[in-house]
Formats: sequence, C-alpha cells, structure tokens
Amino acid sequence: MKETLPNVDSPEWVNAIKFNDDGLVPAIAQDATTGDILMMAWMNPEALTLTAQEGVAIYWSRSRGKLWRKGESSGHQQRVAEIRFDCDADVILLKVEQQGGIACHTGRRSCFYRKLVDGEWVTVDPVIKDPDAIYGKPEGES
Amino acid sequence: MKETLPNVDSPEWVNAIKFNDDGLVPAIAQDATTGDILMMAWMNPEALTLTAQEGVAIYWSRSRGKLWRKGESSGHQQRVAEIRFDCDADVILLKVEQQGGIACHTGRRSCFYRKLVDGEWVTVDPVIKDPDAIYGKPEGES
Repeated sequence: MKETLPNVDSPEWVNAIKFNDDGLVPAIAQDATTGDILMMAWMNPEALTLTAQEGVAIYWSRSRGKLWRKGESSGHQQRVAEIRFDCDADVILLKVEQQGGIACHTGRRSCFYRKLVDGEWVTVDPVIKDPDAIYGKPEGES
Repeated sequence: MKETLPNVDSPEWVNAIKFNDDGLVPAIAQDATTGDILMMAWMNPEALTLTAQEGVAIYWSRSRGKLWRKGESSGHQQRVAEIRFDCDADVILLKVEQQGGIACHTGRRSCFYRKLVDGEWVTVDPVIKDPDAIYGKPEGES
C-alpha cells in the first residue's frame, strides 16, 4: 500500500532542532502523569511538525521508512501534553497521555520492561494485554 | 592529555544490546526519585560495562571521542540505581541519583529546559548554579 506523504511546511521552531545525518532526531515519550518513560523513537521534521499540529505523537519508522502514527494499529495513541528539547538541541522529549495505558508492542505499559539484576536481564513488568488481542493475528496465521 | 582506554571485557548481558553502526546506543538518564528526565547521551559497550561495574554513569562523548565520566569536571556524578533496556534492545534507561541536583552543563537540573509554547521555544527551568562556578573559567579567559 503506497502512502502519499503529506506536504508539510516546517514551522520556524522546527529549525532549532539538529537532526542527524539521516534527518532524524530521537524522541523520548514520557507519561505526563506518572513520569514513567514509555518508549524512545525517531522523528523527522515532518513527524515533529505533525506531532505539534495534531497533538498526538507521530514518529518516523526507520524499519518501514514512513511516518508512523503511533496507535494507528493498536489504538494506543499518545496525546501530547508537552514538547521539550534538550540543551544540545538534538533530543526531543514528549510528555504524553498514553491511551490504553500500553505503549509497547509487547502489550506492556512501557518498552523498558527489562532490568539488570546481578548481571542478568530480568523482565520486571507484566504484559497488560496480549499483543494478538491488540493487533489481531495476521491473516493466514493460525 | 592522552587517555589510556581501560581494557574492558564486556560481560554477557551487554551482548543483548544492539549498538548502532557507530557502535553506540542512546542512554536516557532519569532521576530515580522525581522521575524527571535529566539528559540523553550515548554509550559504547565499554561505557555501559563500566557504568554497571562502577555504579556511576559513564557515557561515550561523541564530540571528544572518548569515555565521559559524567561529573568528572562538575562533580555532578550520577549514581546508578537501575539499568533497563527497551523492547528493541537499542535504547538504555538509567535511573540515577543526580549529585548536586544538576545534570545540565548550563547549570540546570535537566537538559530539557525548553518547552514549546504557542509555536515558540520558551525556557521554563531556572539555572541553579552558574556554569562558571561549576566548571571554573578556562585559564586565560577574563
């Protein structure tokens, strides 16, 4: 399915951001209420502009090479309460309201669900909802 | 001044992390107590290994091309309470106790001190300590 990219003129404030050689900047999503760090993804100027315009997090999917409207499959949108950037102007921070309480594609609240304990990674956060129930199984799979 | 790189053997758990083409992974530092996001920097395998071994945040400075022991000039070390990584295994999260309550080289608590308000970036967090007082003025400067 081919996607027509929206024709987005970046507003002036986007010029303050230093995008990397791939034209991307990392964006951290933090739960505006609990302070939990939910995920980190990437944005190009269009994604950042649209995120501010539409008030929901829109990233750039590096694997798919297209805009990624967070929640387009899962319904787990992120309503943007605040946009910040850092002293070096090369990282974005979004404070968001996480719809459904699930940010991770594994069905967990946060993507950071594994913790180093005595030299081993331990999964410390539960799956809230089965990913199959979130995304549906692809056709043809049993 | 030449730095001798420590000879660090990466432990097994480091192999779970996907470093990028430059051999680096982004690392988010979050205040373990308040939940504030303090900064984002980069780590190579040695930095990540030493961070876990020494219990203080050690990054890789891309500009200086060497290990960066956070706080080596400022005294504002980050004691590491927790190390997590994300579902894609390409982002590290550190929960830290920020010594001096200042993470940013501008003398602010967090590097994310500017916020988008009505299409403009506005500085919303105060300077806690003058950077000249933190780092001292370089010799020869008035």
